[in-house]
Amino acid sequence: MKTQQTNKLWGSAFGVTPDNAVIEFTAGRDVAVVPPADAALVPYDIRLNKAHTVMLAKTGIIPLSDGAKLLSGLIMLDQLAAKGKWTLDPTREDVHSNIESWLTDTLGIEVAGKLHTARSRNDQVVTDMKLYLRDGVLMQVNNCITLIQSLLELAEETKGVLMPGFTHHQHAMVTTLGHTLAGFAAMLLRDIARFTAWHTLHNHCPLGSVVSYGTSYPIDRKMTASLLGFDGPDHNSLDAITNRGEAESDVVYATAIMMNHLSLIAETLILFATPEFGMLTLADGYSTGSSVMPQKKNPDPLEVVKGKAAFVHGQLMGLIGMGKGNFIGYNRDSQWAKYMVTDVLRECLPAPVVITGVIRTMILHKSHMESWSTKGFVSATVLMEQLAVAFQLPMRVAKVVVEKAVKASAGQDKVTHQSLIAALGEMGLSCSVTPMQVELWQDPHHTTKLIASYGGPGKNSIKMSLKKLNKQLNVHKMWLDSKKKSGKASEALLQNAMKSVMKGGE
Amino acid sequence: MKTQQTNKLWGSAFGVTPDNAVIEFTAGRDVAVVPPADAALVPYDIRLNKAHTVMLAKTGIIPLSDGAKLLSGLIMLDQLAAKGKWTLDPTREDVHSNIESWLTDTLGIEVAGKLHTARSRNDQVVTDMKLYLRDGVLMQVNNCITLIQSLLELAEETKGVLMPGFTHHQHAMVTTLGHTLAGFAAMLLRDIARFTAWHTLHNHCPLGSVVSYGTSYPIDRKMTASLLGFDGPDHNSLDAITNRGEAESDVVYATAIMMNHLSLIAETLILFATPEFGMLTLADGYSTGSSVMPQKKNPDPLEVVKGKAAFVHGQLMGLIGMGKGNFIGYNRDSQWAKYMVTDVLRECLPAPVVITGVIRTMILHKSHMESWSTKGFVSATVLMEQLAVAFQLPMRVAKVVVEKAVKASAGQDKVTHQSLIAALGEMGLSCSVTPMQVELWQDPHHTTKLIASYGGPGKNSIKMSLKKLNKQLNVHKMWLDSKKKSGKASEALLQNAMKSVMKGGE
Amino acid sequence: MKTQQTNKLWGSAFGVTPDNAVIEFTAGRDVAVVPPADAALVPYDIRLNKAHTVMLAKTGIIPLSDGAKLLSGLIMLDQLAAKGKWTLDPTREDVHSNIESWLTDTLGIEVAGKLHTARSRNDQVVTDMKLYLRDGVLMQVNNCITLIQSLLELAEETKGVLMPGFTHHQHAMVTTLGHTLAGFAAMLLRDIARFTAWHTLHNHCPLGSVVSYGTSYPIDRKMTASLLGFDGPDHNSLDAITNRGEAESDVVYATAIMMNHLSLIAETLILFATPEFGMLTLADGYSTGSSVMPQKKNPDPLEVVKGKAAFVHGQLMGLIGMGKGNFIGYNRDSQWAKYMVTDVLRECLPAPVVITGVIRTMILHKSHMESWSTKGFVSATVLMEQLAVAFQLPMRVAKVVVEKAVKASAGQDKVTHQSLIAALGEMGLSCSVTPMQVELWQDPHHTTKLIASYGGPGKNSIKMSLKKLNKQLNVHKMWLDSKKKSGKASEALLQNAMKSVMKGGE
Amino acid sequence: MKTQQTNKLWGSAFGVTPDNAVIEFTAGRDVAVVPPADAALVPYDIRLNKAHTVMLAKTGIIPLSDGAKLLSGLIMLDQLAAKGKWTLDPTREDVHSNIESWLTDTLGIEVAGKLHTARSRNDQVVTDMKLYLRDGVLMQVNNCITLIQSLLELAEETKGVLMPGFTHHQHAMVTTLGHTLAGFAAMLLRDIARFTAWHTLHNHCPLGSVVSYGTSYPIDRKMTASLLGFDGPDHNSLDAITNRGEAESDVVYATAIMMNHLSLIAETLILFATPEFGMLTLADGYSTGSSVMPQKKNPDPLEVVKGKAAFVHGQLMGLIGMGKGNFIGYNRDSQWAKYMVTDVLRECLPAPVVITGVIRTMILHKSHMESWSTKGFVSATVLMEQLAVAFQLPMRVAKVVVEKAVKASAGQDKVTHQSLIAALGEMGLSCSVTPMQVELWQDPHHTTKLIASYGGPGKNSIKMSLKKLNKQLNVHKMWLDSKKKSGKASEALLQNAMKSVMKGGE
Repeated sequence: MKTQQTNKLWGSAFGVTPDNAVIEFTAGRDVAVVPPADAALVPYDIRLNKAHTVMLAKTGIIPLSDGAKLLSGLIMLDQLAAKGKWTLDPTREDVHSNIESWLTDTLGIEVAGKLHTARSRNDQVVTDMKLYLRDGVLMQVNNCITLIQSLLELAEETKGVLMPGFTHHQHAMVTTLGHTLAGFAAMLLRDIARFTAWHTLHNHCPLGSVVSYGTSYPIDRKMTASLLGFDGPDHNSLDAITNRGEAESDVVYATAIMMNHLSLIAETLILFATPEFGMLTLADGYSTGSSVMPQKKNPDPLEVVKGKAAFVHGQLMGLIGMGKGNFIGYNRDSQWAKYMVTDVLRECLPAPVVITGVIRTMILHKSHMESWSTKGFVSATVLMEQLAVAFQLPMRVAKVVVEKAVKASAGQDKVTHQSLIAALGEMGLSCSVTPMQVELWQDPHHTTKLIASYGGPGKNSIKMSLKKLNKQLNVHKMWLDSKKKSGKASEALLQNAMKSVMKGGE
Repeated sequence: MKTQQTNKLWGSAFGVTPDNAVIEFTAGRDVAVVPPADAALVPYDIRLNKAHTVMLAKTGIIPLSDGAKLLSGLIMLDQLAAKGKWTLDPTREDVHSNIESWLTDTLGIEVAGKLHTARSRNDQVVTDMKLYLRDGVLMQVNNCITLIQSLLELAEETKGVLMPGFTHHQHAMVTTLGHTLAGFAAMLLRDIARFTAWHTLHNHCPLGSVVSYGTSYPIDRKMTASLLGFDGPDHNSLDAITNRGEAESDVVYATAIMMNHLSLIAETLILFATPEFGMLTLADGYSTGSSVMPQKKNPDPLEVVKGKAAFVHGQLMGLIGMGKGNFIGYNRDSQWAKYMVTDVLRECLPAPVVITGVIRTMILHKSHMESWSTKGFVSATVLMEQLAVAFQLPMRVAKVVVEKAVKASAGQDKVTHQSLIAALGEMGLSCSVTPMQVELWQDPHHTTKLIASYGGPGKNSIKMSLKKLNKQLNVHKMWLDSKKKSGKASEALLQNAMKSVMKGGE
Repeated sequence: MKTQQTNKLWGSAFGVTPDNAVIEFTAGRDVAVVPPADAALVPYDIRLNKAHTVMLAKTGIIPLSDGAKLLSGLIMLDQLAAKGKWTLDPTREDVHSNIESWLTDTLGIEVAGKLHTARSRNDQVVTDMKLYLRDGVLMQVNNCITLIQSLLELAEETKGVLMPGFTHHQHAMVTTLGHTLAGFAAMLLRDIARFTAWHTLHNHCPLGSVVSYGTSYPIDRKMTASLLGFDGPDHNSLDAITNRGEAESDVVYATAIMMNHLSLIAETLILFATPEFGMLTLADGYSTGSSVMPQKKNPDPLEVVKGKAAFVHGQLMGLIGMGKGNFIGYNRDSQWAKYMVTDVLRECLPAPVVITGVIRTMILHKSHMESWSTKGFVSATVLMEQLAVAFQLPMRVAKVVVEKAVKASAGQDKVTHQSLIAALGEMGLSCSVTPMQVELWQDPHHTTKLIASYGGPGKNSIKMSLKKLNKQLNVHKMWLDSKKKSGKASEALLQNAMKSVMKGGE
Repeated sequence: MKTQQTNKLWGSAFGVTPDNAVIEFTAGRDVAVVPPADAALVPYDIRLNKAHTVMLAKTGIIPLSDGAKLLSGLIMLDQLAAKGKWTLDPTREDVHSNIESWLTDTLGIEVAGKLHTARSRNDQVVTDMKLYLRDGVLMQVNNCITLIQSLLELAEETKGVLMPGFTHHQHAMVTTLGHTLAGFAAMLLRDIARFTAWHTLHNHCPLGSVVSYGTSYPIDRKMTASLLGFDGPDHNSLDAITNRGEAESDVVYATAIMMNHLSLIAETLILFATPEFGMLTLADGYSTGSSVMPQKKNPDPLEVVKGKAAFVHGQLMGLIGMGKGNFIGYNRDSQWAKYMVTDVLRECLPAPVVITGVIRTMILHKSHMESWSTKGFVSATVLMEQLAVAFQLPMRVAKVVVEKAVKASAGQDKVTHQSLIAALGEMGLSCSVTPMQVELWQDPHHTTKLIASYGGPGKNSIKMSLKKLNKQLNVHKMWLDSKKKSGKASEALLQNAMKSVMKGGE
């Protein structure tokens, strides 16, 4: 997938062309090959084989000497694969067959023929997938953290930048850009929570379930679980195999909601970047041109985020549909889970990264944003609230008054003092509201001071909530660090165990 | 929905007819009305109104005396609604309008016109939905606990009942009924975990977000959050409103996976109950007849579980599709989330209950089950394993030997000693395997002793894993109890706060 | 569902409030009950019973006298139901049981006990559904015709109204409003084609398939098919029953694509109606207000169209998911198809009607639309084309020239003569382009004359394509008329046959 | 994708191993690469370029001499690509850029820079996709015809082979294998109808829509449409581009329903092949073994059909979700439609072929099938019908009688004369039914003669319906032939037009 696209049919009107990561994300599969699904599993299957071999040797199921030979073979293969000198042979069924066959070619059947002892491809692939998904989840948590950090930083900077707040695509009340960006951060924090919940639920090891019904070899499932960094073995071998696709579906669901959030950010920025809204301009590095129209600058990467959201929804449906009405035990249908989930991770892991880039590089037209905050009666709600507070009016009464005043002020940008007085009169109310009050209660710089409710765009409340959101982000960062550490610890455990077997088998 | 169906067109061949809960679950909406979606929200909206009024009065936004009157009105309405003496007026837009209008009729606009102060229907309905969903989640956790308990009890009873274990709908190895049922329990334990994760993620209060951009009234969001049993307020008012449908989608996703699990149980039991499998008979109370065929006894409730699984998948698709590419702020599209999620809860809350009934009442044909465990070479895998263990053969070699022996034994139920010896010879192996060994390694009563891997159907391992599964179940039970308690505590808090306001407002 | 909502919490700022059809469409199920699914089937099941009775009597399977009595009973019931004096009894399983039970109560078991001869509820419900869906399809075709007609009329009126044409939400080239509206009409014409294809594929009668395997009674399936207006009987009784849900799924798919088209119209109009775009204002009758904000006017009906599109996608998923991996013969799962498809028709039949209303009543801001057609280099593409034509430049070369000229003209609305000359020079080209040419090729009034490609917005080409689209519409209108006629003819056939039986049975 | 898998981990117990087509279908993407999506478009894009060049030259938009050079270049490229000597360069954005760049390298910018005149990648890719999808549709029609033919032939052969007919997975009535297979054929005939409807709806040419808003070049869209075998140009350039993904979605929907039908066949055969049903054995060529269990023979290809059905459902959801709530004009989101639809065709085009192979090679256990047709009261319904006919009993009364008789005959296979007499007595009926009658009405060989309803399994009715189904198949065959012919005719047209341009340009 590392391609550098040149010979582009557009670009002369641009200062900078988008960098490679953005091109790859946006280009899709037009000219890019999708590698075999099992290519992503090679390191995981090798690692599993190492742990399984250690266990077979330590429990005496195979002799230490055979264990040592198998481990040497696996270490060699690992190095070859890492250097790109060994890739999957398409004439050998899958990653499992490929590795076992290579070991057989290298070590002979007498040794390599013992590798598949006390296991089956059923439990092997489910375990591989869990290792793969676990890494994918940690990577996605990492990418979300980066994006949230950028959002919170920009929110801090722009917490005083006025803009219209929308409902129904219409101007509702005045808000700030910082408040909007903090809203994006808040929703992404929930996405991380879904990914961490995945880890808690699924970090259990299926290896040793064999075809679905265990084995008569005296295996030690706790040992393999621990060598592979799992919290322990799964508790039922039938469940572990039958419900293949569930861990996949949980990752894809969490991704689908994350993509919905990113698509919301994308849609919002696409609209803000239209000539009509004119609130911001995307950086050239995150725009593309047209093959025909000389003047075009298009938000393709943002559109692609929306397209990929729909794509992920589809994969989710495929995955959960696959899980309906099945009979117990392994069924081949579930193999397609592998393709759906690897497609989703390949397409969506970079999505938060791309949005981070868009956010960091876009050019804000702050004064244009602010210009809308004094138009279209956008402060009528605060006017109504303050009128109610000042004259102890029921909110419902104050609302009717201001509605009438809005109607009478048609053609202007704000409610006039005159029309408000008239509306109060019409309602039989005598409130001595002053022109100064009417002015002040519709002045967005003043109203953002008045708005004090927690979680809102008010001057003080946004400070408090940004603090809270940063705190939540820190909790997630610490979680990620702890998982990285325990990953390294289990890797060290495996290395030591391998050394011990190899020493014993000399 | 409380209907007692009589005048059935079938039933004379049955000892017992299914009870009402099963009929309602199975009958669907043929002759049953679906109540207005807001009917389910009445108690929640009243509760929200109480908490909101307390807050308005305690913060001085409205006078204590108005607060007291509003609370009296709400208490009266609550009682009327509970007795069925007050229902939604379809000429009044929604539950919020209905309640406010009733209060206006009862207390006059001067008092009732203050209820909607410092809030909007946007934050109100999102809060209502969270209260409703939170209860639904607890109820579903409860129903899953009941089902798991039944499964684990029957698993305990039948942990020695032999049956064929399947992969690809073919006989794979010998297992036990208890192991199969424990597998069902294991997967449902994950469903509970998804529901409890929902609670952790979503038990935050959106009230006070108002239209999406806060309010200039000096509200106290912590107070309302606490009075409604939430862990605190949400942190961003725009996020809270824009992402309506996300909490709904999370519940529906968890339900979709649960329904997949139940549909797996259903499909398995449907097959086991065919004349061909003959492994069990469903109780008459969980079967239905035909309008035409005199002899029929059909597993309709189980089929309905499968149909509802597909139904829930569809609602999930609707919900996540609704969330794609939205613009910030409230949009009316999201209203349909209400109908999709209430339909899902209404249809699926009883599903684990119905399956519990099926499990508890079905008649097992144990000896027929066991009869299959000595046929079709179903112990060939253990034979291969034991051969490998006894003669230190690589598993791959032992497998080829037994494959050849299976082929040579065609037409019989087990591998014969003679064919095994021949196969060993063909492979150039001289292993002095005895007829007794060949017999024993294919005797299912013996092999279940040999299978010692954790999580498998072996005599000892199943005991250990049942213990573990029961322990997990207890953790969930304790969680549910603690949530029930904190629910009661927040209810008491609200009652006291109301009393204090009403006393103050006298 | 006929409710007149009053006591609204908003509306004082509006000239007109939306009419009832719009309110019902928009209100959803908040305070509206969903009737039993079988309520919609009552007229169809009665009609089926009439045709079946005629056939039983004419073939001599039941005596003419019994046939006559049954028909009298059915006629009476029909009248009672039409007057609302007979509704479904929720204690009687379904519409079939309800009707048979009522006949039994009225005519006694000796006569009524013969109604269900040579049929089953399996073939009965599939036939009912086909009658119901067939009517739904014709109604939807009718509603689409109305909408297309409005679109084409307005397109005719506005075929000269300039506006920016968009790609990627950015201004691409100049187009006209008429061209845009004609595009909407073109896509809806395909929707009608999908509905008529449904009719061709599914207008075959399943009655007589009985449980799935026929009957030993000497029934005449051609007769019932013809009395019910079908093109003939289905050809395989197992297929007819097993694939219940397929005709439903086909209707829902056609509806899903139609809703996508309507959601595209909705989104486009929502954006055009923002203060930023300012291209049109929705009529008050198709807008709603806020419960809080006094100034708001929201495009709720359009948003609801988008929400319902997502809803329909979900039902489609449910329906096709239901059809996966089934075993032959009737299975109860498929009953849920009834609820999904009736929900879809109830929610979506009015959608084209509502959009028709929006289109007919919206206020266009034509001069504002046109004002955008001279900004942002929106005619750069025509400039490039004309430059290429005039000076025989390869398009690729002309494009680079104009790209450079656009860059050099930054800050202006059009490419300047000076910058174009400079760009040509830079490319080493000497084309004697005049200031007048540069002006003319960027004048939208002139360029729409230049654009002559069929299907485009050009002055002449739009005339030709409107003619073609109107012609296609007429073909659909004639089809609808012919189906209405043949519907009446089959109804007359049934009436005559009933008379003949009743006469014979006197 | 042409891989020959060796080194399999199973197979010694098999007589034959599955052939390559089956392996490829079943293996999925484990070790197989997915080629770039645009690889499938190369021949279509070249053909489009030829037709476009012809039109540009014939209308004088470009000189004949340039046209001739471009055509020579395209012919050369076509040959290189066909021989595999030219493949997509991943550094060049897409198939369009690749081809244009190659022409530029070969012919120079002065000539090649004219190729992209009066078009855009927007209309180009939509046209490419239609050409590609049109071929895919014809191929799938062809594959369905082959499968239906096999089904109808085997149905003819086995129209007298008795077997139990199922509803609810329980034995309902006696049917025949031929009737079951004819049911499969009947549903697949509808699938073909959906594909042919696609052709009628979508065989219109979008080329010339350019970015969405036409062009000022004097292009001739009728000419390109005709040269590419379309029925004419599309009528609105905005519609053509905006609704990218709709033709894709229509193909995928038709495929989804076809896959549901194939998954129904698969599930039915999987169950019939279990040891419990024992009705058939799959050929070794359509089975796979286990990596562990020596005795296993698994119906993997059939399971894969089910898995792919779920996969296609997912892609459909992705596609229609992508089409919701879009704004007018091209948006990049829609690019993902390409990947979803090409994945679907690649995975599913072979599905009917694989099922054809399964059907043709499976071994039927006819006497075992028949043995079930005299058990479990499977003829009770015909007994009831004949009782009603013989003694003029209302069906409802006869049903109660036989229900009672079934209950009294518990433990036996059929209703006994004694129990029937008793049941009649209990109901106060005196019908002189003879033991012979009771015997005959439950003898399946006799009852299949009695069942005379059209579409049913009866001896005569199955003959009539097989005739009808064969006739429908012939209509589809003739349609396919006519499309193949018109495809060749348009190809000849293009060749001649090319020659004429090349001659003119000499």
